[in-house]
Formats: sequence, C-alpha cells, structure tokens
Amino acid sequence: MAAHIQARLDELGIALPVVQPPVATYVPFVRTDNLVIVSGQLPMAGGKLAVAGKLGETVSLEDGQAAARQCFLNVLAHLNTACDGDLDRVVRVVRLGGFVACAPTFSQHPAVVNGASDLAVAIFGDAGRHARAAVGVASLPLDAAVELEAIFEVR
Amino acid sequence: MAAHIQARLDELGIALPVVQPPVATYVPFVRTDNLVIVSGQLPMAGGKLAVAGKLGETVSLEDGQAAARQCFLNVLAHLNTACDGDLDRVVRVVRLGGFVACAPTFSQHPAVVNGASDLAVAIFGDAGRHARAAVGVASLPLDAAVELEAIFEVR
Amino acid sequence: MAAHIQARLDELGIALPVVQPPVATYVPFVRTDNLVIVSGQLPMAGGKLAVAGKLGETVSLEDGQAAARQCFLNVLAHLNTACDGDLDRVVRVVRLGGFVACAPTFSQHPAVVNGASDLAVAIFGDAGRHARAAVGVASLPLDAAVELEAIFEVR
Repeated sequence: MAAHIQARLDELGIALPVVQPPVATYVPFVRTDNLVIVSGQLPMAGGKLAVAGKLGETVSLEDGQAAARQCFLNVLAHLNTACDGDLDRVVRVVRLGGFVACAPTFSQHPAVVNGASDLAVAIFGDAGRHARAAVGVASLPLDAAVELEAIFEVR
Repeated sequence: MAAHIQARLDELGIALPVVQPPVATYVPFVRTDNLVIVSGQLPMAGGKLAVAGKLGETVSLEDGQAAARQCFLNVLAHLNTACDGDLDRVVRVVRLGGFVACAPTFSQHPAVVNGASDLAVAIFGDAGRHARAAVGVASLPLDAAVELEAIFEVR
Repeated sequence: MAAHIQARLDELGIALPVVQPPVATYVPFVRTDNLVIVSGQLPMAGGKLAVAGKLGETVSLEDGQAAARQCFLNVLAHLNTACDGDLDRVVRVVRLGGFVACAPTFSQHPAVVNGASDLAVAIFGDAGRHARAAVGVASLPLDAAVELEAIFEVR
C-alpha cells in the first residue's frame, strides 16, 4: 500500500510543522488502545503564535479560520509522530474540540472551527469526517485565538 | 427482547426530534469500537434555536434547564440513528459535556445541565447515570444558551 | 506486587480526600472497557470550596495552581474508588481537561493547570504523563477557580 495520505499532503502543498517539544509535564499525545488523544494545540507557526486576540474583537473571521487550520496542522504533526511517520495508519478522525477565544457577543464559532474541519476532510476524505464541539471561551493560553484538541482512531 | 427504551420514551411522552443534516464538514456522530461520540448539540427545536442568550443575564434557570433538556433530545435523535433505530443497544451513557453560555457572575451551571442529566436517567435508568463536566463559556454558536456533547457505550 | 502508588502517596505525604457523594443525577466516574472517565472536579477540601474567584482578577497564579492540585486530588479519590482501592491498577493518565475561570485578559492557563499535571507525574511517574487541554472559561460551578476532568486507562 502506497503512502496515500502523504501523497495527499503533497498534492495540497502541505508540509507538516516541525514538532515542538512539550513545555510542561504533559505530552503532545497519548495512545490508548486504538485511540490517539492529541493535546490542545495553539496556532503556533515557526515557533511563534500566528493569531492572537479574540474573535468579535480584533480577530477577523478569516484570521480565526486560518488559526483553526494552523492548529489542525500542529495536531497532525503530533499524530504523525504517534503513527511513526505513517499517516496511512489513521483509520479516522473521531472528534475535534474547538475552543474559540471571543467576545460574549460572538456567535460564528462553527465557521471558525471549519478552518480545521475542512482541512481534515481535504486530507483524509470520508475518514476525515468527525464529531465536533465548538465553543467560545473567555481566553486561551498566550492569548491565542483558537485551541484545538483531537481524537483519532489508528491501526 | 422488547424495545424497552422506545417504550420508556412513549411512557414519558417523548418524541425524538427529526434529525437535522450536518451543516458543515463534521458529522453528528462517530462510532469507534463500542463508543458513539455525539457532536455538540444546541437547543434546536423544529429547526429553530429554542433558547438564546446567557444565563445570569436574559435567560432564567428554568429556561436554561429546558435548553439542556432539548440538547439531550437532539443528542438522543443522533444516537438513535447511530443505533439503527434501536436504542436498546445503548449499554450506558458514559459522559455528558455541558457548556453554559453565561455571565461571569453565574455559578449554577450544575442545575442547568441537570436538565439533560435528569432526562438521561429518566430514560435509561441506572444505565443513564454518567460522568459529567459542566462549565460556563463566553458564548456559543448562534448565541445558544447551552451546548451539550455526549459519549455512549453501545453494543 | 506491592502497593507502589499508595507507597508513593505516603512518601509525598498525600492523604486522599474523602469521596463526596454525587449531588445530582450524574456520577463521579464511569468505567467503559479499560477507561475510567472522571467527572469534572472542583477544588473542594473538607467539604468546602478551597479557591473561589477568577484568575487575572482576585485569584493569584499560586492559588490557581493550588486549586488545580486540589482538583486532581479529588479526581484521584474517585479513581481510587473506581479501582477498588488499588491505584496500582492504573495503567496511565490518558487526558486531563483543565478549565480555568478567568478574566478575558488572562493568558497563563498552562501554568495554572500544571498544578494538576505536575502532581500526576509526581505520583505516577512516566505513566502520569498525559494529553491535556487547558482553556479559560467565563465562570465555573460555585464560582470555583478551576475545574478538572480526567480519563485514565486501568487494568
């Protein structure tokens, strides 16, 4: 079996981010049975926070979507490590949890988190369709605009 | 084995909501092994948001509880699809996650989410007793007052 | 096999809190297959809330960390019950979910939740290293400063 998902990433012009070492006593992912649970990821790019601030205040919908997309790329980088570099071992994306830092008046959380969900489907196809919760929170670590956690089934 | 849970629903006078098709690239539920993970549900009824606004501001405790109850009904409708229409395949409710849109001064989140928890136990009995987290959030999609996600064990 | 984890708790001078009975229709934990899901715990100590208020307002970073630590102790007390009093049956800490009640300007959520994460590793060693999400929320039950939920793999 060829490396389908890697080929799909190449097709989409996506290079996985370099995995960052954990900065605390937690780890980027845990595998239990056939599930990989990935820790909450921020929109870090090149070692820096790419999108800071809050939706409904200083962060536009487009920037929020880009933040969610970047979070998913960071999730994917850790998943890749969990799968020993073979993303074809991913059976499916099970669940994405999207936390959107926002003003109390903001209501477009689904559109923001679609930045991650759409990429999941673009990469994994039907296996990328997942359960999801998207909520608005008071604030996030480092003043990030979005945080994304994920569960995958792997073989 | 008779259809116990359907009979219980009838006894309680509960008709499951009509399942709404997904509006984004996520799906209403995912099954992995013996777990069904249901996406965050809003208090939609008849295609419209039944309870908008925030607890501790414009939404009363009673309306918040009704919203949580409605969320659980929507969860149940998707679970029913996941079980091919046979809710007797539900082994137990594993976890409910309740997000309550509220003012920073609000502190009665458990009472709100009980609107869902009490219904779970009314329908499933001891198998309806679940682990739970209930938190207050800055805002929710469409300005909903409550969002509820759920995990079930099924056979 | 000796009771390693109990010995480790003794070494650390940690006595597990007395388990509180559930106050609603949910339960403190659910076991499904090899996973134990523990309900969201507040920083209760001796039957009272130990740390109330919000980070970035009236609660200091140190008090927030102490709150997260206390939450983990309460998680542990329920896990102990789930394991019939034998914590050596814990295979690993899978995931901690930390909710920090805070001002919209607060950004040190990871440092707060480390109060729980550091204790997990102190007690369980490498098996204590876990996936994690830490977010800031508008408010929590009883005006608690922190709420912590957890998933463990057990044998």
